[in-house]
Amino acid sequence: MIDQHWTFDRQSQTPLYLQLYQQLRQAILQGAFGQQRRLPPGRQLAERLGLARITVSQAYDQLVAEGFVVRRPGAGTFIAHHLSLTKTNVELARPFQPTLSPWGRRVVGTAVPATPKQLKPEIDFGFGRAFPHIFPYDVWRKLLARYLSTDDVMLSRYGSVAGFFPLRQALADYLTRWRGVVCTAEQIVIVNGAQQALDILARLLLEPGEAVLVETPGYADAAALFRLNGARLTAVPVDDAGFCVDQIPAHSQARLAFVTPSNQFPHGGTLPLERRMALLHWAQQENALIIEDDYDGELRYDGRPLAALQGLSADERVIYLGTFSKVLFPALRLSYVVLPSALVRPFVQAKQLIDRGAPTLTQAAVADFMVEGHFERHLRHLRQAYGQRRQTLVTALQNHLNGLVKYADEPAGLHVMLYLPEGIAETAVVQAAAQVGVGVYAAAPYFMAHPSPPAILLGFSGLSEPEIAEGVARLGAVMGKLLG
Amino acid sequence: MIDQHWTFDRQSQTPLYLQLYQQLRQAILQGAFGQQRRLPPGRQLAERLGLARITVSQAYDQLVAEGFVVRRPGAGTFIAHHLSLTKTNVELARPFQPTLSPWGRRVVGTAVPATPKQLKPEIDFGFGRAFPHIFPYDVWRKLLARYLSTDDVMLSRYGSVAGFFPLRQALADYLTRWRGVVCTAEQIVIVNGAQQALDILARLLLEPGEAVLVETPGYADAAALFRLNGARLTAVPVDDAGFCVDQIPAHSQARLAFVTPSNQFPHGGTLPLERRMALLHWAQQENALIIEDDYDGELRYDGRPLAALQGLSADERVIYLGTFSKVLFPALRLSYVVLPSALVRPFVQAKQLIDRGAPTLTQAAVADFMVEGHFERHLRHLRQAYGQRRQTLVTALQNHLNGLVKYADEPAGLHVMLYLPEGIAETAVVQAAAQVGVGVYAAAPYFMAHPSPPAILLGFSGLSEPEIAEGVARLGAVMGKLLG
Repeated sequence: MIDQHWTFDRQSQTPLYLQLYQQLRQAILQGAFGQQRRLPPGRQLAERLGLARITVSQAYDQLVAEGFVVRRPGAGTFIAHHLSLTKTNVELARPFQPTLSPWGRRVVGTAVPATPKQLKPEIDFGFGRAFPHIFPYDVWRKLLARYLSTDDVMLSRYGSVAGFFPLRQALADYLTRWRGVVCTAEQIVIVNGAQQALDILARLLLEPGEAVLVETPGYADAAALFRLNGARLTAVPVDDAGFCVDQIPAHSQARLAFVTPSNQFPHGGTLPLERRMALLHWAQQENALIIEDDYDGELRYDGRPLAALQGLSADERVIYLGTFSKVLFPALRLSYVVLPSALVRPFVQAKQLIDRGAPTLTQAAVADFMVEGHFERHLRHLRQAYGQRRQTLVTALQNHLNGLVKYADEPAGLHVMLYLPEGIAETAVVQAAAQVGVGVYAAAPYFMAHPSPPAILLGFSGLSEPEIAEGVARLGAVMGKLLG
Repeated sequence: MIDQHWTFDRQSQTPLYLQLYQQLRQAILQGAFGQQRRLPPGRQLAERLGLARITVSQAYDQLVAEGFVVRRPGAGTFIAHHLSLTKTNVELARPFQPTLSPWGRRVVGTAVPATPKQLKPEIDFGFGRAFPHIFPYDVWRKLLARYLSTDDVMLSRYGSVAGFFPLRQALADYLTRWRGVVCTAEQIVIVNGAQQALDILARLLLEPGEAVLVETPGYADAAALFRLNGARLTAVPVDDAGFCVDQIPAHSQARLAFVTPSNQFPHGGTLPLERRMALLHWAQQENALIIEDDYDGELRYDGRPLAALQGLSADERVIYLGTFSKVLFPALRLSYVVLPSALVRPFVQAKQLIDRGAPTLTQAAVADFMVEGHFERHLRHLRQAYGQRRQTLVTALQNHLNGLVKYADEPAGLHVMLYLPEGIAETAVVQAAAQVGVGVYAAAPYFMAHPSPPAILLGFSGLSEPEIAEGVARLGAVMGKLLG
């Protein structure tokens, strides 16, 4: 009858009639019935397959409803005339191979730093991990629950594209008060991570081939995004005080500069006021815009964070990026951008077209978290917890690697970047450390020019103080051996 | 001393020293100190402003820390030498005016359908509203709470770019079983709304000027997105059975076709199998891809939903889009895309670069919601509730507008599109309805060619049955008057 291998799973959640329907459908599409247009009578098929007649009848009904077969009263059930009866050799059918656009080809060509799939090391100095026990989950749960009542209509509508307004107000208040940002709530847009803000900005502002200044070493994902959108990158070196403004090439013709003034990533270091003023002066001269990525400006461990570059610009030449990933938790995927007035409308309209805004629920909960004082309290806890961890790390470095490594000793951030002695390969250190259960990470991907000086990153935010001390002790032993 | 108007708010959350610091900083940046480099001694300023000496001293400390001033022991506190002393006329400083890229100019030039800011009508036939009392908030709250415990590390890391794997598995199972989609979990990527998937696909696949087929009337936001990314749109008409495949221009050279086979948006109608096979045949001939937007394929009220177009393609020529916005709630912002194998890597890599993935928490809760059977139960409730509402709407249309309007009577979706009698202006109907407290929406924005036939959309998903009946009765009265 039909050249078909039938399988039925009576334990499956899928009803038997659906299993039969699916197999009949595939048989028809693949031409398994050959030249035979008439399906076997339901009773006959039911007997042959050991199924109830109603099961076969329901499967046929579905095939009729979908137009695969037609019932001719008195004659039987027939495969629809428009379906080919040719046997398709599914194994030979070549799956579609897309031709990618230039953008698509750049995506595929971009080396995305691979997430290491190896076994999780015993002591993992991974960067940007949040220490889970610090976050006040009880408060968070309570705030979320507040917005989950059946009477709340907030969940049933699309949210505002620019973000939940009370959150934008809370941020404007916070940024003015604590970060020296000069803005109104209307200039703030909530984004799904800082990368999204960079992507929209690059698309809005850059034409293919235009130059963007980036730091080296620097935030590789930002550089990748600018490159992806057709920009030409000009890498400017950093020193212990951050971005070397005096090393911007004289005729860079850059339209944008991407900088991390609060705490240079990943080198470390705070841009002094003099360089900030010089950078603003450069932007005015060149009619360029500056993107200030304040990814962890809140995390300073010696007194109040320095005020943002944004607040120093008299003519709105600085776009400020902030994120909740580091200070709340990364899985939240909430960041924000403070835009010059003239960019608000284009940015919001772009976001409207490409994703319609961030989820409302989390935004509402974060707004309450800020307005009700939990945020500043949490930041105090974080500063204390991370400040101590950083101090433990620095002390351990002095004890176990003194004189061997250099680093910018900036009491800020969630990691320390160690420059290794000349002549030692960073991959050798990473591998040797892994063998004693310690995860450290190569800095090479963050350099825009190669060969880069050998360096590794030690993130401390996911570890306890004893783990940090032990990890550095093991790293010291490993380095000692490597240096013979 | 200083030409400055001081204001202090002792009730503010901002400490007084910060208020003073902020005003001093502005005064310095704006050149208010004139040629005077030395700040007044702390004691003197404190007396003059009626502040404690410690307050002034803390403000000066902050200015020192940030490099605005330097202390010279025995001599006083001086404005840093690199700061200009020229008085800046802030009011004259012209805010930065960005030059937008061609993409940016297209964004600004795209007419984004304005969210109506008018008073909410008493009976609002707005489209795509979810009826809030149907969703099982208690279950949802419980599922979210499950992942909010302090011991869970999920929140403290970035999630997987392609999406939370158990959710992708649950979707693969659901889509295979109920939507006739042929896929593995690896082909599914979670996105922040279907617009994001379209944006990534357009960027990956289209070069400027390439043609895309869209339906007219059709989903305007998708068309806007293709246009934004430089595509040339070819509009293909629809009839009561959806996309008119036989009206695709012979030499369209289209690389993509965007269609809504389950329930054509906004006209209504299910694409019959014959047209589906013809569309797949067209795609093979033209080496084109098809995007199947199954935005509400779950919402059919007469038996089982028809199987997706995706499952009929033997060579992976169909990209399937689905969303939780309609069947859970819009503020969730979770959609998914089922990709041909060859597109998975480029798509995930693009998403990695531009936003790093959707929030983990909601994905985990949705995964459990599906795996534990809540989703299918909820769909049954939705189908019943919306099916009844739709029936009420159709009955009311027969009672009050019989013979006056035409519509595709497809038992599916969340709205009905009414074609008005020739010669009546849809804006007149919208306005007259508003005056009797009824919100109905013009269909013109959904047509790709103008003038479009007068038509309005009636969404029924946010209303109770009595509201629907009353709303249509009022609409009938209004139309009667308009037609004299």
